[in-house]
Amino acid sequence: MAWVEVRAFGRRSAIGPLDHSAPPRCRRSDPMTPNSHNNDAPVQPDEPGSVGLVTPRRVELFTPEDPLHLECGAVLAPVHVQYETYGELSAARDNAILVCHALSGDAHVAGRHRPDDPKPGWWDSMIGPGKAFDTRRYFVVCSNFLGGCKGTTGPTSIDPATGKPYATRFPMVTIHDMVVVQQRLIEALGIRRLLAVVGGSMGGMQVLEWAVSFPDALAAAIPIATTHRMSAQGIAFDEVGRQAIFADPNWRGGDYADGPPPDRGLALARMIAHITYLSEKSMHRKFGRDLRHRDRYAYNFEEEFQVESYLHYQGSRFTQRFDANTYLYITKAMDYFDLSADYPSLRVSLRRAAAKFLLIAFSSDWLFPPADVREVANALRANGRDVTYVNIESDYGHDAFLLEVDELTKLISGFLRNLLREVRAELPLPDDVPP
Amino acid sequence: MAWVEVRAFGRRSAIGPLDHSAPPRCRRSDPMTPNSHNNDAPVQPDEPGSVGLVTPRRVELFTPEDPLHLECGAVLAPVHVQYETYGELSAARDNAILVCHALSGDAHVAGRHRPDDPKPGWWDSMIGPGKAFDTRRYFVVCSNFLGGCKGTTGPTSIDPATGKPYATRFPMVTIHDMVVVQQRLIEALGIRRLLAVVGGSMGGMQVLEWAVSFPDALAAAIPIATTHRMSAQGIAFDEVGRQAIFADPNWRGGDYADGPPPDRGLALARMIAHITYLSEKSMHRKFGRDLRHRDRYAYNFEEEFQVESYLHYQGSRFTQRFDANTYLYITKAMDYFDLSADYPSLRVSLRRAAAKFLLIAFSSDWLFPPADVREVANALRANGRDVTYVNIESDYGHDAFLLEVDELTKLISGFLRNLLREVRAELPLPDDVPP
Repeated sequence: MAWVEVRAFGRRSAIGPLDHSAPPRCRRSDPMTPNSHNNDAPVQPDEPGSVGLVTPRRVELFTPEDPLHLECGAVLAPVHVQYETYGELSAARDNAILVCHALSGDAHVAGRHRPDDPKPGWWDSMIGPGKAFDTRRYFVVCSNFLGGCKGTTGPTSIDPATGKPYATRFPMVTIHDMVVVQQRLIEALGIRRLLAVVGGSMGGMQVLEWAVSFPDALAAAIPIATTHRMSAQGIAFDEVGRQAIFADPNWRGGDYADGPPPDRGLALARMIAHITYLSEKSMHRKFGRDLRHRDRYAYNFEEEFQVESYLHYQGSRFTQRFDANTYLYITKAMDYFDLSADYPSLRVSLRRAAAKFLLIAFSSDWLFPPADVREVANALRANGRDVTYVNIESDYGHDAFLLEVDELTKLISGFLRNLLREVRAELPLPDDVPP
Repeated sequence: MAWVEVRAFGRRSAIGPLDHSAPPRCRRSDPMTPNSHNNDAPVQPDEPGSVGLVTPRRVELFTPEDPLHLECGAVLAPVHVQYETYGELSAARDNAILVCHALSGDAHVAGRHRPDDPKPGWWDSMIGPGKAFDTRRYFVVCSNFLGGCKGTTGPTSIDPATGKPYATRFPMVTIHDMVVVQQRLIEALGIRRLLAVVGGSMGGMQVLEWAVSFPDALAAAIPIATTHRMSAQGIAFDEVGRQAIFADPNWRGGDYADGPPPDRGLALARMIAHITYLSEKSMHRKFGRDLRHRDRYAYNFEEEFQVESYLHYQGSRFTQRFDANTYLYITKAMDYFDLSADYPSLRVSLRRAAAKFLLIAFSSDWLFPPADVREVANALRANGRDVTYVNIESDYGHDAFLLEVDELTKLISGFLRNLLREVRAELPLPDDVPP
């Protein structure tokens, strides 16, 4: 089976067995070829619309001779990037869509790695033949972002200077840095201009960053359930999560690679964050005050309410697929995100953005509330851009971007069809990018 | 100086030096005399409207011969209660108001214990001559609730069976249990019927419990920023706070009295909870994305944003005045609170409540949102009760019940003046209590 090297965090493998025999920079496939994903692989019979079996790929994009210059001032090399693609890149290379994942996501956005994979990619409901991102029409790319723990260089990677994991010696990375790496990947795939960049939550931050950092390189931007800058409340929740990790005695300053990982702290961080992904209404509907075992209170400190049990499960499951140091870095990258930090206003900061925009919010999202998304839409409109803003009525809270598949599909599939038509007819896109 | 014994949590004293020489059940003052607070004590010249110097009192209300029967089935004795009073009880004993405190509060609600006390009681802005609870008219009582760590019997108290602190061997207490103890105190003070019971947040839960458990014993109820049952989201936040304490290696199953207390876990619990006390808007206004030291990112994990610094401070300060085991018990008491648990509906559960109600919510409170308070108001109205419901427009979030002093004063002072007039005129109160 074609199974490229995946550097798993800590001592576990997230999406496949570790291959210690493979040299760190080895490329088992030629990732420079914008290959279609294996569309003739057997599609699961019970999965109509699935992209079927997919092969993760890994590429070295920055080398010691050509290192990555980070916003923090540090220089990083090598930088490996894990990515997957689905569908076929057209001859004109005009149908590529980049999906940016959120905090705990990865490059595996659709399909399955093996026929017996228990779960498909994280946005499988949206990507595949006939789905919102219809792989019969579009070539979809998703990469694990810089600083991640799912194959792309991050705190769990081996620091060539020491031969040990970077851990907290990894330099701080920003959303801008992540996007620079993604742009290098897209370039390496031979794509000059993306049809669209799409992402929810922290993925939406990357979309906004794409639109201002590489305005020529995308026809459209689809930021979902996101914000142009992390709020004080968002920073506060991130910080208590980080403190939970720091407080775990197993964290040991980040150097836990040789010992038990700080699972308790990481689980706690995830539990805190998970509450912010749901709405009060959805929690009430899902759990209410239901008890786990009986209809009477136990009057002890064991998990008693269903909602407690659910949170424990979410926290514990997260530690099986995520790395604590990575969590620290990624939340900091979110906290640093502020599109208008160096500008007199959000409007001015967005002036370079030339893409057509489809901005989507969810009514019950209180982590990145509709007002945040609308603020971006208004600033773009004030700049004369082509903007569609939709606030989808939903009780799912922030998680709606993963759950409101029908609504998202309706919006996005129509938007993309028109977009591709415009791009192919060489209709003029909204405004020219200012020089 | 008259300074009664205060059992401080752990090895620290919250409101005064420990007096180890005093026998645990000693009463240095006669708490059975409904004494006015020391109104002729020198009022601080810079504090118009202050009740001045006050003396905390402590009383034994349940004894081994007459123990407290708890909802969980356990029996508890002795039960000491720490309390304070302000103003004079009228000859007719018809002007007494009980204030119920919230999670981290105590009996010291107004005035100062010593002239050099750096801070007055926690609701000093509301209680004193000319204030909302005008001590020239009303006799105000506040006690530390059962299970607390500010003088009333709780997990930090000595278990007579072992001679050691109860710690997690303390029985689980509920809001109902707390109210039963308060009722015993009121009775001991010679008060048959309170003019009003008032409280915000968890204090409001106690007010609602009073109204249904002792309907004859109060003319009016003033629940503020509260709920008739803890929501799934509320339980979730409480549970992550408890897990933060459990995860602290210093917690040691609760038996930390002889070692360093689990301050890091307790601070983390407080930081999480503190976010829920503020609104996104107030956090934005107060901190935004302001940095602590400079105008550029530090790109490290030290506290960098003002909001982080503030949360750390709040967490750390809390550990200096609160006990971790107590935090576990009190949050469980809140989680268990569900007025309608044993009834077909909230309306039916409130049928016994005979008091006149002033219910107050704050528009930006997302911990106990206005909808929760309105639900209680509607159920009471459906029962034909005399109900005033006010949703105060405020950006302060849940903390508004401590901060919106002007609005609260306007509402409450008028309500109480009318109430006292009605009670003294022996106007018939709304409905008779059903037998």
